[in-house]
This record gives sequence, C-alpha cells and structure tokens, in this order.
Amino acid sequence: MERFDGRQPDQIRPVHMNPNYNKYAEGSVLIEVGDTRVICTATVEERVPPFLKGQGKGWVTAEYSMIPRATGTRTIREAARGKLGGRTMEIQRLIGRALRSVVNLEALGERTLTLDCDVIQADGGTRTASITGAFVAMIFALNKLVEQSMLEKIPVNDFIAATSVGMVNGLPVLDLAYAEDSTAAVDMNVVMTGTGRFVEIQGTGEEATFSRDEMNQLLDLASTGIAELHKIQRQVLGEAIAAKIGQV
Amino acid sequence: MERFDGRQPDQIRPVHMNPNYNKYAEGSVLIEVGDTRVICTATVEERVPPFLKGQGKGWVTAEYSMIPRATGTRTIREAARGKLGGRTMEIQRLIGRALRSVVNLEALGERTLTLDCDVIQADGGTRTASITGAFVAMIFALNKLVEQSMLEKIPVNDFIAATSVGMVNGLPVLDLAYAEDSTAAVDMNVVMTGTGRFVEIQGTGEEATFSRDEMNQLLDLASTGIAELHKIQRQVLGEAIAAKIGQV
Amino acid sequence: MERFDGRQPDQIRPVHMNPNYNKYAEGSVLIEVGDTRVICTATVEERVPPFLKGQGKGWVTAEYSMIPRATGTRTIREAARGKLGGRTMEIQRLIGRALRSVVNLEALGERTLTLDCDVIQADGGTRTASITGAFVAMIFALNKLVEQSMLEKIPVNDFIAATSVGMVNGLPVLDLAYAEDSTAAVDMNVVMTGTGRFVEIQGTGEEATFSRDEMNQLLDLASTGIAELHKIQRQVLGEAIAAKIGQV
Amino acid sequence: MERFDGRQPDQIRPVHMNPNYNKYAEGSVLIEVGDTRVICTATVEERVPPFLKGQGKGWVTAEYSMIPRATGTRTIREAARGKLGGRTMEIQRLIGRALRSVVNLEALGERTLTLDCDVIQADGGTRTASITGAFVAMIFALNKLVEQSMLEKIPVNDFIAATSVGMVNGLPVLDLAYAEDSTAAVDMNVVMTGTGRFVEIQGTGEEATFSRDEMNQLLDLASTGIAELHKIQRQVLGEAIAAKIGQV
Amino acid sequence: MERFDGRQPDQIRPVHMNPNYNKYAEGSVLIEVGDTRVICTATVEERVPPFLKGQGKGWVTAEYSMIPRATGTRTIREAARGKLGGRTMEIQRLIGRALRSVVNLEALGERTLTLDCDVIQADGGTRTASITGAFVAMIFALNKLVEQSMLEKIPVNDFIAATSVGMVNGLPVLDLAYAEDSTAAVDMNVVMTGTGRFVEIQGTGEEATFSRDEMNQLLDLASTGIAELHKIQRQVLGEAIAAKIGQV
Amino acid sequence: MERFDGRQPDQIRPVHMNPNYNKYAEGSVLIEVGDTRVICTATVEERVPPFLKGQGKGWVTAEYSMIPRATGTRTIREAARGKLGGRTMEIQRLIGRALRSVVNLEALGERTLTLDCDVIQADGGTRTASITGAFVAMIFALNKLVEQSMLEKIPVNDFIAATSVGMVNGLPVLDLAYAEDSTAAVDMNVVMTGTGRFVEIQGTGEEATFSRDEMNQLLDLASTGIAELHKIQRQVLGEAIAAKIGQV
Repeated sequence: MERFDGRQPDQIRPVHMNPNYNKYAEGSVLIEVGDTRVICTATVEERVPPFLKGQGKGWVTAEYSMIPRATGTRTIREAARGKLGGRTMEIQRLIGRALRSVVNLEALGERTLTLDCDVIQADGGTRTASITGAFVAMIFALNKLVEQSMLEKIPVNDFIAATSVGMVNGLPVLDLAYAEDSTAAVDMNVVMTGTGRFVEIQGTGEEATFSRDEMNQLLDLASTGIAELHKIQRQVLGEAIAAKIGQV
Repeated sequence: MERFDGRQPDQIRPVHMNPNYNKYAEGSVLIEVGDTRVICTATVEERVPPFLKGQGKGWVTAEYSMIPRATGTRTIREAARGKLGGRTMEIQRLIGRALRSVVNLEALGERTLTLDCDVIQADGGTRTASITGAFVAMIFALNKLVEQSMLEKIPVNDFIAATSVGMVNGLPVLDLAYAEDSTAAVDMNVVMTGTGRFVEIQGTGEEATFSRDEMNQLLDLASTGIAELHKIQRQVLGEAIAAKIGQV
Repeated sequence: MERFDGRQPDQIRPVHMNPNYNKYAEGSVLIEVGDTRVICTATVEERVPPFLKGQGKGWVTAEYSMIPRATGTRTIREAARGKLGGRTMEIQRLIGRALRSVVNLEALGERTLTLDCDVIQADGGTRTASITGAFVAMIFALNKLVEQSMLEKIPVNDFIAATSVGMVNGLPVLDLAYAEDSTAAVDMNVVMTGTGRFVEIQGTGEEATFSRDEMNQLLDLASTGIAELHKIQRQVLGEAIAAKIGQV
Repeated sequence: MERFDGRQPDQIRPVHMNPNYNKYAEGSVLIEVGDTRVICTATVEERVPPFLKGQGKGWVTAEYSMIPRATGTRTIREAARGKLGGRTMEIQRLIGRALRSVVNLEALGERTLTLDCDVIQADGGTRTASITGAFVAMIFALNKLVEQSMLEKIPVNDFIAATSVGMVNGLPVLDLAYAEDSTAAVDMNVVMTGTGRFVEIQGTGEEATFSRDEMNQLLDLASTGIAELHKIQRQVLGEAIAAKIGQV
Repeated sequence: MERFDGRQPDQIRPVHMNPNYNKYAEGSVLIEVGDTRVICTATVEERVPPFLKGQGKGWVTAEYSMIPRATGTRTIREAARGKLGGRTMEIQRLIGRALRSVVNLEALGERTLTLDCDVIQADGGTRTASITGAFVAMIFALNKLVEQSMLEKIPVNDFIAATSVGMVNGLPVLDLAYAEDSTAAVDMNVVMTGTGRFVEIQGTGEEATFSRDEMNQLLDLASTGIAELHKIQRQVLGEAIAAKIGQV
Repeated sequence: MERFDGRQPDQIRPVHMNPNYNKYAEGSVLIEVGDTRVICTATVEERVPPFLKGQGKGWVTAEYSMIPRATGTRTIREAARGKLGGRTMEIQRLIGRALRSVVNLEALGERTLTLDCDVIQADGGTRTASITGAFVAMIFALNKLVEQSMLEKIPVNDFIAATSVGMVNGLPVLDLAYAEDSTAAVDMNVVMTGTGRFVEIQGTGEEATFSRDEMNQLLDLASTGIAELHKIQRQVLGEAIAAKIGQV
C-alpha cells in the first residue's frame, strides 16, 4: 500500500531549516516539515518567573500559536476570542516540558528562555516540528551567551527532536501529514533524545484503542524518524556548535 | 525498599465508590482512591454541540475542577481568575477523549453526555481517578436511558479505567500518591480497556528521560492496576448493568 | 395546612455537620441542611489584602461556588464563562460580611481567613447553610491557631448562624427548601448572633411586597430557627471549644 | 446631637429631579439627593431575554455604574478592568428586583425596559437614589407607550421609592450622606411602595450587630422618608401621569 | 444650500462649558457642543505608570466612555461586554496624545493627570468636544497645583482645541452634527494649538476618497472653528488663568 | 544630511512581494519593506456580519498581529493577555477602512473578505506595509472568484497603497524605518489611490506640533512614495490582473 504522497511507511517528509530567520531574536529558525512551516524564536531574558526567584536556577518555557490562515479554513484568533484554547495550552506545555528535560537549569542561571513557535502554515505535525525547531533556536541562543561569556558552556546535555506516528488504514506510519492525521485511528507524538531515550510519549486512540503490539511498532518507527531529525539538527547547527551539546 | 505508605510497588491504594452520590444527576459516583476524592456526575442533555448538528451522532465531554482547598495550600479559583488553566484544560480534554474511545456516538443519538469531575480532595492521581469514576457515572446515566426506553442498549463497547505509574527513586511503582508524584522522575498516565487495549498513554520525563525498557516495566504495572480497577467498577455497577457493556 | 415535606411552619430541616471533612484545611465541615450540602473549609494565610497592609489587623473573606450538577439542571461553570455571576458575588460578599461582624480583626492580627463554601448539592438555603457551616469551620481554624500558640484566644465575640424564612401560600414558614423557595412571594435571609442580635436581614418581595406585620412574623420564626442552629453548632464544636467563643 | 450637615435625625436631604434630561431615552430623569447625582434613563425594546421568549410577558432590568470621578478618589473603570465588581452587580440586581415588584409583566407584553442608572457624583445613597429616580424614568417611558397606543394602561400597580437609614454614633438617622455612611455601625436600605408595604429590606451590621428594637426605629424613619420621596415623585411626574399608576 | 439645522457651512454649533461641574475632581467641566454633552474631569495622582518610574517626568492620559443611552438606540456597556471596543481605544489614545503635545512632562514632575471624558449625550463630535473640554479641565487642575505651590507654573505651552470637518453632499462643512456625520463622504478630525499649528489630523474617506484640494478647504474650515473654540476656552478659564498658559 | 541607512529623504526602502506565499488562502503575499515583513492572507467566506444580513452587500475587514519577537524586545502575546491592545485595534480598523474605500460592496455580493496581516518582523511602517500587501492579497482572492465565475468583475475601482512620512531632525523624510520613526517629531501615515486621491491621512505630533507648510511637504513626499508602490503592486499582480482593477 502506498501513502497519499508516495512516501514509504517509515519515511519522514523533507525537512528544511532556515537558521537566523529573524534579525532580533537571540536564536531563530524557520523549520519546514513538508508543507508545515513554523517560525521558532528564542528569547533570553535576565529574569525568572516568581516561583523560581532567588533559587539560582533558570527557566525554559514555550508559546505556540497559529496564524488564522495556517489552516484550510480560517481559524479565529485566540487574541480576538480573549483566551487561549485547550489545544494551544496543551501544546505549549508539551514543548516547554520537552525542552526542559535536557537543559540543566542550575547551569543556565537566573535567566528565562522563551521559545515562541508561530505556525505560518500547518499540514500536520505542527507540535513536533515546533519541538524540533525550537531545540535548534534554543541552542543558537545559548551559544550566543557562551560567545558573550555569559555562560561557560551550553547547559544542555542531549539533543531532542520529535515526530508523530500513527495507525492509518490499519498500518503504522511515520510523520503523518494532515491528510493522514485526520483519518488516523491512533496518533502518537514522541519526543526522544539523541541517545535514544524517551522524553515524552503521548499516544491517543481517537475514538479507537490500540494494542501493546501496535504501540511497539509505532515506537520503532518513531525512533527511526527522530534519528534522522537529529542528523538534520546537527547539520543546521554546524559541527562546531553541535559538539558543545552534552558537555555538561 | 518500601513505599512511604507501606504499599508494594505493584499495589494500588484502597478504592471506594459511593454510587448515586448526587440526587439530581442522571448518574453519579463519589470515587475515593486513597485520600483522593472526586465527585463524578453525568448529565444527559437532548442536544449536541454546533459542530455535530444534524449528523445523528451524540457527544461525550468532560469538565474537571478542584475546590480551592483540595490541595495542601489553597489554590485560587479559576472562576475568580477568569480563565481555565492549561492543566485543567489538558485534563478535561483527556477525560472526554478517553470516554469517547469506547462510546458508539451514532448509537447514542443526538445527545450530549457531560461528565463533571469535581475534586474535593487531591492526593495524586486525580485525573486517573476522574476517568475511572466518570466511566461508572456515565454507565449509570446510560442505563437510566435504557430503562426509560430512550436507548435500546448501552452504547458502550468496553470498560475503561485509568491509573498512573512512575519511576520513583529509580524504581517503577503503581498508583502514585502525591508524596511520590512530586518526586517522580517519570510520570505516566495510562488508560486501558477491559480487554487490555490502550486508550491513552501519556508518559513524561519531568526534567528527566526514560528508556524503552523502563517504559515496558511501567506499562506492565499499569495493566495490573487497571485490571483491578475494572473489577471494582464491575462491583459498583452491579452485574446486571455491567453485563450490558460491550453488547454493541 | 401542611408543608410539602410534612414539616411544621416553624420547623427547620434535619441538620448534620461532619467536622474536619477535609484533611488539608485548617478547619472544615461538611454541612447538610436537608438535601442541601456544602463543604466549608477555612484557610489561614499569614498575609492581608493590600488595603490592610501594615495596620495590624486581619481579614476574613469568603468564596462561594456550586458544582455544575448541584442543581436539577446542569449549570455552566463560572470558570468556563470566565466570570463570576452576580448571584455568586452577592452571596460571597454576604458570607464574608456576616463572619466579620463577630470577629475582632485587631485580635486576629495580620492574617487572612478565607472561608470557601462549595455547594455539592443544592436544595434551597445554600447561602444560609454556608454561613452556619463556615462559622464552625472558622472556629476550628482559629482554635488550631490558639493550640499552636499563635493566638492567645479565639478572637470571636459571639456565635452566628443563618436561616431563611418566607411567605409561602400566604403563610410564614421557616427554612425554605427549594420547592418552597421557588414559589415564595417573600423570601428573607436572616443572620443572627448567639445573643439574639441581628447581623444581616435581606428581605425581598419577589414580584410582590410585604407588610410590616408579615415581616415581624418572619423575624419571629427566624429567631426560633437560628437558636436551634446555634445549639447544633455548639455540639459539633464540642463544649471545650464553644466555651472559648465570646471571651474577647 | 446635631448631624454634620445640620439636619434632624428624621430629615432627608434636598431632592431635585430634572425630568427628560436626555433627548434620546423613552424616559429619563437627573435625580439629585443632596450632592448625589444620578442620570436615570429608561429604554424600551421590543424583545425579551431568552428565558422569557414566547411567554407573553415582559421584563424590567437595571444597570448601574459610576463615572470614575464620582467619588473622592478616582475609581478604575469596570470596562477597563474587564468585569463588573460585586458591589455593582449587587446594586443593579436590587434596582431591577425593586422595580419588577410593582410592574405587571404580563400587562407589559413582550417588551424589555432597561433602566440605566449612571452616577455622576456620589455622596451616599446612590443605590436608593437610583431606585427613586429609575421609577420616575420608567413611568415616563411607559406613559409614552400609552400615548402611542402601544399599551392601554401603565402596567404599574404602585409607586416605589427608597432611602437608607442607619445607626450613626448610636442614634438612628435617615438618609445617610457619605460622611455618615462611612462611620455607620448599621446601614439599612429600604424600598417601599406608595401604600406603605415593603419591597426590599437590606440591613447590615458593618462589623457590628443590631437589636430588634433598633431595627424597628430604623424602619419608622425609613417610612417617614419614603413617604416624602413619593410626594416628590408625584410632583415630577405631574398629577395627570401619577393618577395612572395603580389602575391595573 | 442650507445645513439641516440652519447653520452656515463655516459655523460651529453653540458651545457652553459649565466649569467645576464635579465637586471631587481637581478640575472639571461639563462641555456642551450643540446637543453633545461630555463631563470632563481631571484627576491628579502623585505617581507615574511603570514605564516612566524614576525619570522625573509626569504623564497625561485620557479615558473615554459613553453612557448606554447617550445615543439614539441603547449601546451595551463595555463593562458588561468585558472589554473596551476599538472605537473607544482609538478615541482615548487620541485625546491623551493631543493633550500631551502641549504639556511639558518634565515640568509636570512625577505625577499622572487622568482626563476622564464621559459622554452623557452624543450628537456628533464627541471626541473633539472631549479634547476641547478636557483641555480646560486639565488647566483647572494644574492651576490648583500652582495655587497649592506644588508647581511653580502651569507646565503647558499652548492651548489646544479640536473640531471635525467633512464633505457633506459634496460641500465642505464645519463641526458636523450626527445627522451630517452619518452621511458624510469624508470626515476629518483636527486638533490645533492656539498658535495655529497642527497637533493631529485624522482624515478618513468613508467608503470614498478625497482630493488634495478638498483637504485644503477642510483644513481652512477647521482653523476657523478652532480659533473660535480657543476664545471660548479662554473665557471659561478666565483671563487670570488663561494668561498662565505658554509661560513655560 | 544623510539618513541613517544612506537613503535620500524622498527614497523608499527596497520592496519585495512574494505572491501566493500561503497554500491555503484564496490570496496571499509576503511583503517586505526593508526589514519589515508581513504575511498578508485574504480569506473569502460566503457570509456577512449580522449588521449586513439580507442587504445584498458584502464586507471587507482586516486583522493585524505581530509575533512576539517581531520586535527588538519580546512583546507579550495579546492572546495571553486576553485582549487586543489599543494600537492593534486602531491599526486593524485603519486597514479595513482603507480597503473598503475602493471596493464596491454591492458588487462583491453577500461575502466577507478577511485580510489577515501578521507581522513576522517589524522595522517601522508595519501598518502601511500591511495595507500595501493586503491590497495585493485581496486582488488575488477576488480574481480567483472571477476565474471561478462567482463574480463577473473584480469589484475594485482603484489601487491603494500606503506609506509613512515624518519630520526627522527637522527635515521631512519618506518611508520611516524604526530608527527614524522612534525619533520623529511628526509621524504621518498616508493611504492613497492609484489616481492620486487620499483615502486616509493620520498625522500626529508626538509631543510636538507641525505647521501647515510642513504638512504640505510631507504630503508631497507621500505622493511620490505611493506612486512607486503602485508600480510594484502592478508588477506583482501581473498586467492581466492589474488591468481588471477599475472596471467597475
């Protein structure tokens, strides 16, 4: 059986990252995964949220948004509605948590890194593309702090990247585009480190359920895809910077 | 090594359910899992949300809240803040999704079931207790519709229940109380059916990561615990009602 | 003429209070007045609102809420609406004001007592049950401060309790259940002290009016009912604690 | 003992009403009670709120607001805060309820009367001045409907007016100005009909309590004051219009 | 061609100002321009907004609102909607900006002047009447600070006043009433100083456009009208106060 | 005197437009004016806002937003704040009004065109770049309707484009970049048609004023700049489409 776009079940979509896409942010990247496009910017601020004050630790947080016409039909702006939707909150909490899993917050010092992920075109996998791109933007920003001697080392102990996997027409497939995502019986987002450990697994039966066996097949696919994403992250960062990850 | 409350690693806390706790709701239960207490009520309304109008299908949704002193220190009410927090949204989306995975929405007809989960005391595992209790409240409400001849059968094809598992002090344990949850390196919420299939897996490394091996151990524990919860649900519902589940 | 539930016109419904219902709160009670059930918790915080800072005085405030299915038809959560309704605000202002009338705020010191009244089942008289229950929860919390030597005495100079009275089918009756409340021409909430003084009287003609004579009959009934509630409060608190009230 | 402004204990402040103050409203009045000034406008709309649709009944409702500098220190606008405060809600519910007590909603037909009470200067008694003025604005608007043959009669069965009374320095006084209100131990708002019946009594001990005897003295004062307000309402309306009240 | 109210094209409506209309505000005026009536109050507060702290400079800001029945049909309150509309924000930003253009914020010192413009009747030109009136209220407030020796001089270097001009039925006219405003093809609000310089020009083709020539004719009219408004401001302030403007 | 970036006073920044930047929108363009970048998308919906229902007319509206790191320091999202700021409202009202000035709403039929202007990098002139880009996106969308035979002609009677002009260091300059904008004494946004008529002029003295002579010089510069923008719009649209503008 062939996928709607001709890909193999274990094949990710073409991934491109345009580094330093934004002239103001301390780190930034425009990531494209197929037709999904996300602007990821990293902002460094010399302050921490109230609950961390005076503890000598830093914080990493994320925000996520889609422009109204990122999708096939126009979505009303959350700013116009006057509140963030549940999906947005869920996604931005996921991105922040994923990034924090590899950052040494003590080594970061009393600073806040904010990763803004603005989806300008959505074709499935926006939350996983956001994580993959935000990681790169974050490293650029931290490297700048190292270059400015504000940090000794990049306080990150591993790479992270993310992809989605799912059961589509009864078969496990990797990196679902929107056309697949909307018909998938099971949808799983997986975040993994460069050394193959899990950071986050969110598997959901959409009005369906899945067996342990199916889950294992999905995780195998995810591992394959994420390994490839780590290679691309490494290229975009450049070997000099990539080598500084994991030194803490 | 012993757990703080003397339990074995694969032992759940005592579970009690007080059925029909509320005199108005179509179905209700006060579920207690250790010191965690949640009032679950099921409301049946003869209408569906706008996006489902005229499709002959029903809807199942959930809301979740904690009273301010459900926790050790008082939490400000979300009604006073003027908005739902991200955690609340995430949890109520999870509960609704989990319940829908076993409901035949076509068979339900143009009705909405709203499951309200109000936590009156929280000691870890409030979201999984909510799912386990809300399932029972929902079945009571659907059974009432069957008794009133508004439905032919209970349109639910399997049981669901949920528990949490996690890595605490390097060891996998089942059904984390708050004292464990707050120190766990990995925290995983698992929702499973009566026939042992997964509905939802949400595993999170809290500023940590986990191996595939650890994940497998955690899922084994979760299966054990959830099987026990299904037995208790069956007792509370009574055999007559329990037997009507899975007939569609 | 008989009341719908067989009570005499001057008879209150059965009242039960389950003290220390909540394991975290400094004081708590689950009060049941007929089928009306309210969880009252008292929280002590070592800070005062901005308008009292540095004056050496404390503050007592209350919040009130109903779970969605406390009522016959489901009510939308105020947290979901994004704002408190007028009825809620009116009630929580009333509870706070009533409690403050017997508390010596100077003797309390720079502390805030927050009384949360969460109605889990409503069958008329939720605001008066909240006052009666919140008073008990407050005393438990203050007594704990005395036991911890943070206060010398309980800084409360009298008991307070509350009930409703009204004109139903042309006759004055005590402690209206919902079935009566919804058809009453006149509805009056009365808060009184243990020594028979008024704290608050709110009498309302619901699309009707009332004479001074009717008002006097209603106040006589209220006095009777509240005296009984004071007895029950005394029992629940226990004589040792009750005796400490009025020593300031 | 003399009052701060030389009035007798049973004397109200000078009251003036400027009828038809607004050129657009169906009825309007600028009421001045001492230095308290409220613009009351009545708007007639040929629709009813959703809960009354198709019942052949009308509705009367009120809104209340203060301009920021109505008071000694500037108050932040509720529109800027993004929500109505509890005091505002309490007051506008009171005004609406009071007016409805004398309106025959069936005779009004499927119409909504909205009474807007905008306080442009506040010196105590703004809620009672609002009721007294809003009644007049409402009658003007209803009379216009009679003149336009949209109603046969004014569907109002009695006058209403309101004043405040309170215990100041241990003595009962009538119509409290702000200087007295802010130091009163007991504060009571009373709404009465032209035939001397009560519509609403709201008596509050401000960190104090009051005896039944004191309450009786306060109600005597209120009756005196309100009788005078009814006379002034009658003059402002003119005998021709005033005579149409109570014909239903 | 005659205007609907008999005015010449270059004639403004009758303007009256009632100074010190409010007994609490540091400065106030009730301005009437034809049937448009705005209460302008100036409040002085000894603090500045966060972005100006510690710079030795003051701030001037404005708020604008209409009571619901200021207009022909009732407008829903922004406080009830829970947010300010775009028109309101646009207007209050305009008023604040216009006033700041002639105030020496350094000479004002670390103070905030808030000009509240509350429209109690609207018949076109409410924003320009607000500016003209707010200027007078501001000067009264500043003069009070001079009299109290809190300022040496009035820190204002020129008068400002505002009017609207527009193309109505193809002809340029001055000071549009609502009947004209609602049919104007072009609508321009102009704010000018006493020495004839522009502070703000906002010209808008309402589903139309305008030539440079038309614009020049409109500006000529505006200059004429504003000169007249400056004379009236001078009279209301009195020569003694007016003479203190422009001394910085 | 030279400008900070070497431009002549009457020289605009390099302008690029990337048409059909978004794969979902009916029309779209990524416009770059110097370092200012705005994604403009046009959405066509077959419905009109409530106030236009049943009138056979269409509507054109705009929304404007900036991503948090569009600017030198990170801006908090309006969705997170829960409301749109005054600046945003002012700008989106301006864009909508400007576009409507050249659209024949009757010829458009009962449709809504929504122009979303999302600023992904801001370096001065974001509102004028939004207008210039949104016009092109709108024409692409309308042309698609013509091609699909849903419209006979493009219902637009002229081009519009916009730029800013201002007094910087005492000299009038065209197309202000942020470095100039932030120090300009006078700032004027001008929207003009292809035939040289004005649509909107918004001139503001920022804590300053300007003479009529200065205004005339600024308008001359604006005309020059906008003529150039119209040429670029024509190239991006292509002669075939551009020729269809002005046929109604």
